[in-house]
Amino acid sequence: MSLDPVDLTAKLIACPSVTPREAGTLTLLTEWLKPLGFECHHFVRGETPDGPVENLIAVRKAAQPGPHFAFAGHVDVVPPGEGWDSDPFHPVITDTEIIGRGATDMKGAIGAFVAALEGIEQDKGTLSLLITGDEEGPAVYGTRAIIDELETQSLIPDMCLIGEPSSVDRLGDTIKHGRRGSVNMWLETPGHQGHVAYPHLADNPIPKLARLAFELDALVLDHGDPPFQASNLELTLIESDDGSTGIIPGQARARLNVRFNRHHSGEALVKKVEELAAIHAPGTKVEAKISGEAFLTRDHHIIDLVSDAVNEETGLTPERSTGGGTSDGRFLHRLCPVIEFGLPNATMHKVGERAALSDIRELTAIYRNVLKRVFA
Amino acid sequence: MSLDPVDLTAKLIACPSVTPREAGTLTLLTEWLKPLGFECHHFVRGETPDGPVENLIAVRKAAQPGPHFAFAGHVDVVPPGEGWDSDPFHPVITDTEIIGRGATDMKGAIGAFVAALEGIEQDKGTLSLLITGDEEGPAVYGTRAIIDELETQSLIPDMCLIGEPSSVDRLGDTIKHGRRGSVNMWLETPGHQGHVAYPHLADNPIPKLARLAFELDALVLDHGDPPFQASNLELTLIESDDGSTGIIPGQARARLNVRFNRHHSGEALVKKVEELAAIHAPGTKVEAKISGEAFLTRDHHIIDLVSDAVNEETGLTPERSTGGGTSDGRFLHRLCPVIEFGLPNATMHKVGERAALSDIRELTAIYRNVLKRVFA
Repeated sequence: MSLDPVDLTAKLIACPSVTPREAGTLTLLTEWLKPLGFECHHFVRGETPDGPVENLIAVRKAAQPGPHFAFAGHVDVVPPGEGWDSDPFHPVITDTEIIGRGATDMKGAIGAFVAALEGIEQDKGTLSLLITGDEEGPAVYGTRAIIDELETQSLIPDMCLIGEPSSVDRLGDTIKHGRRGSVNMWLETPGHQGHVAYPHLADNPIPKLARLAFELDALVLDHGDPPFQASNLELTLIESDDGSTGIIPGQARARLNVRFNRHHSGEALVKKVEELAAIHAPGTKVEAKISGEAFLTRDHHIIDLVSDAVNEETGLTPERSTGGGTSDGRFLHRLCPVIEFGLPNATMHKVGERAALSDIRELTAIYRNVLKRVFA
Repeated sequence: MSLDPVDLTAKLIACPSVTPREAGTLTLLTEWLKPLGFECHHFVRGETPDGPVENLIAVRKAAQPGPHFAFAGHVDVVPPGEGWDSDPFHPVITDTEIIGRGATDMKGAIGAFVAALEGIEQDKGTLSLLITGDEEGPAVYGTRAIIDELETQSLIPDMCLIGEPSSVDRLGDTIKHGRRGSVNMWLETPGHQGHVAYPHLADNPIPKLARLAFELDALVLDHGDPPFQASNLELTLIESDDGSTGIIPGQARARLNVRFNRHHSGEALVKKVEELAAIHAPGTKVEAKISGEAFLTRDHHIIDLVSDAVNEETGLTPERSTGGGTSDGRFLHRLCPVIEFGLPNATMHKVGERAALSDIRELTAIYRNVLKRVFA
């Protein structure tokens, strides 16, 4: 059997695994990994509304002791959206590109990693693939369930490489060794509806919420936490009841997101917002959902190891970044040092998502280089 | 012919004249007024969207010169809404009340005024009824068209009584001798949509508009202008584009209303809002619609005359108020001194609008008393 990474990527794209559906992808992976000596544990966790979710843990243990290296990824994709020139789940392969939902985020990386396993001699340590069916959705029963399972089996990796599309302009220009934390909050400011001609009989919630929104935006959370940039709060929505030109509305609402570094925890930020709300818009209810805390991997040889592999295959010295959105690194970092490296991310989540065939083949070479270094 | 005010009111209510439809009411009035010696001019003005609107000017001139007294009113009503126990356009007359849309605002007053004309000897001056089909709507082609017509005919009243429901707890407790001005403004603050993780690539309009909203609300426009209360600005809506928890919106909008006394003009208030917008939310577009300027009738004998008539018929000394919403007084005050007096307003615009039969009969007596004094 010869595993071609583009062929594997195409087969994965052909499964319409819109989050949280795995749509056959985990069965394909099991078929590919078993002949390579992996024990595959395909399991389901959770109930509605955030489940059930299907996940896969594939493990290959060598006879001799050695490091446990994990590759983590997700087979689910975001909905395709409207406006594709081709069917997003019937991959089109041109001379230079493969086009389809998930090509870069992150079926291309999974195809590359599986192909990279060919010819890898592993006579010590443990190699595992941690593949979830829910990274793009609520992620309650995805990687968290995988972590529970690993802990139950006392199968804790020593390091983990996540195949998220970390590259920006060129394959290899960026690795991610941390992520900021993220928390969303929903604010609801109560008032009392009434007629604009009789404001003393009403209580307008808009000025209170507006004051609060302004004060929240003006907060200086910190001045940075290298290599993290300064934490930042953004209002993502403001709205009030809409009566008519003559009506003072009875309620106003806002939504915000904070991306934060290690100076903060999600919980402390919620408390800070609640405190400001109590001053500027008394009675405001704050509901919060913490997507993940900030984390940073440093002083671990996995960083240099991946950087060196990238450099050897591409000639580039990758920038070490902590920017961008969240990934399952927010969960996995609690288990072991985490690094992210994958394809250029220009088309991720977009209509017409695509990856260069040369990038998928070069990524395969980089992943193989990493594996050789880990088990050297 | 004997004109019973309750019967006339019922006949007007039975016409479903939801603004701007007159639905036969102006034909009924013409039928009632012609036998009383009035010349009736029923005319149509305007095009969509604010027209066409039907209006009626009915005039009775005596041989001898004397004052020109005008009664002004509207036959259109606000939509009935849901939840009536009876058909809002099939008036129900109980032992004590008449129930139907327009009973108090203001078909009851029109019925009372027409009935009051019976037995009025008018051997001098001019008596006119100025009845519009659009007071509750945009009012572009209603009373304004009537004023144009009066000016064309050089038929300017010396004083005008508007039959709006001015009474509060009891018929006769309140007359209105002025109204505050009113202006609505729509604000649109531009931004640039983007991802919350990359705020430097976006421009969030919410904090700017929130700051502006807060500053506008904090404005002290004046400290009152007796008998007017202090001018007041209320935000009636705030909203932004709604992307998702991860999206900085591209635009935010607000709407506000100012009720103002004679320290301000609508135009100057728009300018003030534009100036604050330029400081706190640059780029914000302000669109405005001035509903009416503030006006006050004072030192004119129509005030004492109506007060005395009310006092003679009810024993009450009416309070002179400038409170509440707008009326067509905002236009008519430019023509002549204006006063408003009519039924208790508790159920106006509400589901189950109703008037006491005794109030309609007493109002007829008051209007007749006014006419006798005017033409004495």
